Amino acid sequence: MSAPHERDTREQAVTDKVLASFADTPDARHRELFTALVRHAHAFVRETRLTEAEWEAAVGFLTRCGHITDDRRQEFILLSDVLGLSMQTITVNEPDDPRATEQTVFGPFFAEGAPEIELGGDAAQGAPGQPCWVSGTVRDVAGTPVAGAVLDVWEADEEGLYDVQHGDGRVSGRARLRTDDAGRYAFWCVTPTPYPIPHDGPVGDLLTAAARGPMRASHLHFMVTAPGLHRLVTHIFVRGDTYQDSDAVFGVKESLVVDFTEHSAGTAAPDGRTPDVAWTSADFDIVLAPEETA
Amino acid sequence: MSAPHERDTREQAVTDKVLASFADTPDARHRELFTALVRHAHAFVRETRLTEAEWEAAVGFLTRCGHITDDRRQEFILLSDVLGLSMQTITVNEPDDPRATEQTVFGPFFAEGAPEIELGGDAAQGAPGQPCWVSGTVRDVAGTPVAGAVLDVWEADEEGLYDVQHGDGRVSGRARLRTDDAGRYAFWCVTPTPYPIPHDGPVGDLLTAAARGPMRASHLHFMVTAPGLHRLVTHIFVRGDTYQDSDAVFGVKESLVVDFTEHSAGTAAPDGRTPDVAWTSADFDIVLAPEETA
Ligand SMILES: [Cu+2]
Ligand SMILES: [Fe+3]
Ligand SMILES: [Fe+3]
Repeated sequence: MSAPHERDTREQAVTDKVLASFADTPDARHRELFTALVRHAHAFVRETRLTEAEWEAAVGFLTRCGHITDDRRQEFILLSDVLGLSMQTITVNEPDDPRATEQTVFGPFFAEGAPEIELGGDAAQGAPGQPCWVSGTVRDVAGTPVAGAVLDVWEADEEGLYDVQHGDGRVSGRARLRTDDAGRYAFWCVTPTPYPIPHDGPVGDLLTAAARGPMRASHLHFMVTAPGLHRLVTHIFVRGDTYQDSDAVFGVKESLVVDFTEHSAGTAAPDGRTPDVAWTSADFDIVLAPEETA
Repeated sequence: MSAPHERDTREQAVTDKVLASFADTPDARHRELFTALVRHAHAFVRETRLTEAEWEAAVGFLTRCGHITDDRRQEFILLSDVLGLSMQTITVNEPDDPRATEQTVFGPFFAEGAPEIELGGDAAQGAPGQPCWVSGTVRDVAGTPVAGAVLDVWEADEEGLYDVQHGDGRVSGRARLRTDDAGRYAFWCVTPTPYPIPHDGPVGDLLTAAARGPMRASHLHFMVTAPGLHRLVTHIFVRGDTYQDSDAVFGVKESLVVDFTEHSAGTAAPDGRTPDVAWTSADFDIVLAPEETA
């Protein structure tokens, strides 16, 4: 029988041989990534004493992720999300300025070509849900308003689906707008509601095996860009939401939790409109970090 | 500006939250695997300071692996192979008895339903290549011959392709046979030649980025099973092969490197045949570990 240290030597020899094979990678950053990947992945296999059946299951799992992924469904992003890797990547890249608005996950449901709307326009674009007025000001870390900042906003409808998930070509629950000269923005949308991440695929099976739920805390996505400033990708979350503490993708940060004030039908909104149904409003001021500190 | 330790605390908090979400995984082994995966993957992201662009590239890479994978092509196995993860998994599961024949990678080209041949039959089944006579005895670790052990053998033809890679439905270069009462086996096949792993996909791009080649050292695959004994998955390698030290999947082990003796045309083979072309022969005795030590 071989002694434990012989086993250890034999396994380390495999890792060392693989690391050596990446030693001539021309690009230094590639070399760093490849060798770090090898070290951590080999450590995982050795530490867990991964069985060959488990290895086969992992290959099968990744294959299923690949085959379910198409233009409308991105299972590898979902996998990264539920393992907290998306959130960790965002966290390590967070601008190094505590005054800047915090970032959270991008998610798989952004789509290019959203309709451009005027200030005060309707980002719901026909998405079913309760009307919601969102407004705020975009500033830099020195407090100077940012005029002409581009805001992309997107959200699920009250059925818990993004437009692209309906599969009927509709474009709703998303828009692009720009801040005015005072850095202000405002738009109508629908009050965010909780929704499950797609969980009828391998990532759903993983959540089930972990006795975890697929629900995301209610949120509205923002992406904000302006020349010379760090791109902000974030959400606002609805204070008091059921899934605040169990968000399936670990996206909630306290600074992003916002009060959504309820208004009864017939109350005038800030733009003079008087919705004939109950509506909500939320204020969210945004601070963009300088590009350099990214 | 936030101090380094604040950053560290913030990142550790993300990892801790994710680990906590897996704490209620009902199956203890699943829990162990999920939490180890989270720890190592988060450590990778934190240590490399993975950028969001690199994260996107990784998602794109896995997506391409998924989309190129089908019944005949398994890119995730190739990926595991070139990262040495297949070989490391085999190494940690290697039976704990130094007398047993060593294992190596299974590879992506095994196929069910290979033709059954008699002892001394032809595993080439029409595959182009130089005739090769392979023989040996299968024993247990006590040295007792194993009668009726099932051998699956498979190999690429001299074009460097397995039958399934030709895509024309042919079945060649693979067979199943059984040892006789004295544990002996023998078959004809073709002399193994080097071949590239499929490298026209994302894994090929990874090899290119690492300035690594796609070639496998010349080999013949064996899978040997017998009741009560540990299944052996291995290769024999051709001594003196060009790619002995740079096998793309790290499969070579010194104990598996075998002399392939060359014989000129017209020399009689052990089965009495006299090939009218030059041929080779190799002897390979196999020792199976008991099932219990696996
Ligand atoms: Cu690690
Ligand atoms: Fe979302
Ligand atoms: Fe092979």
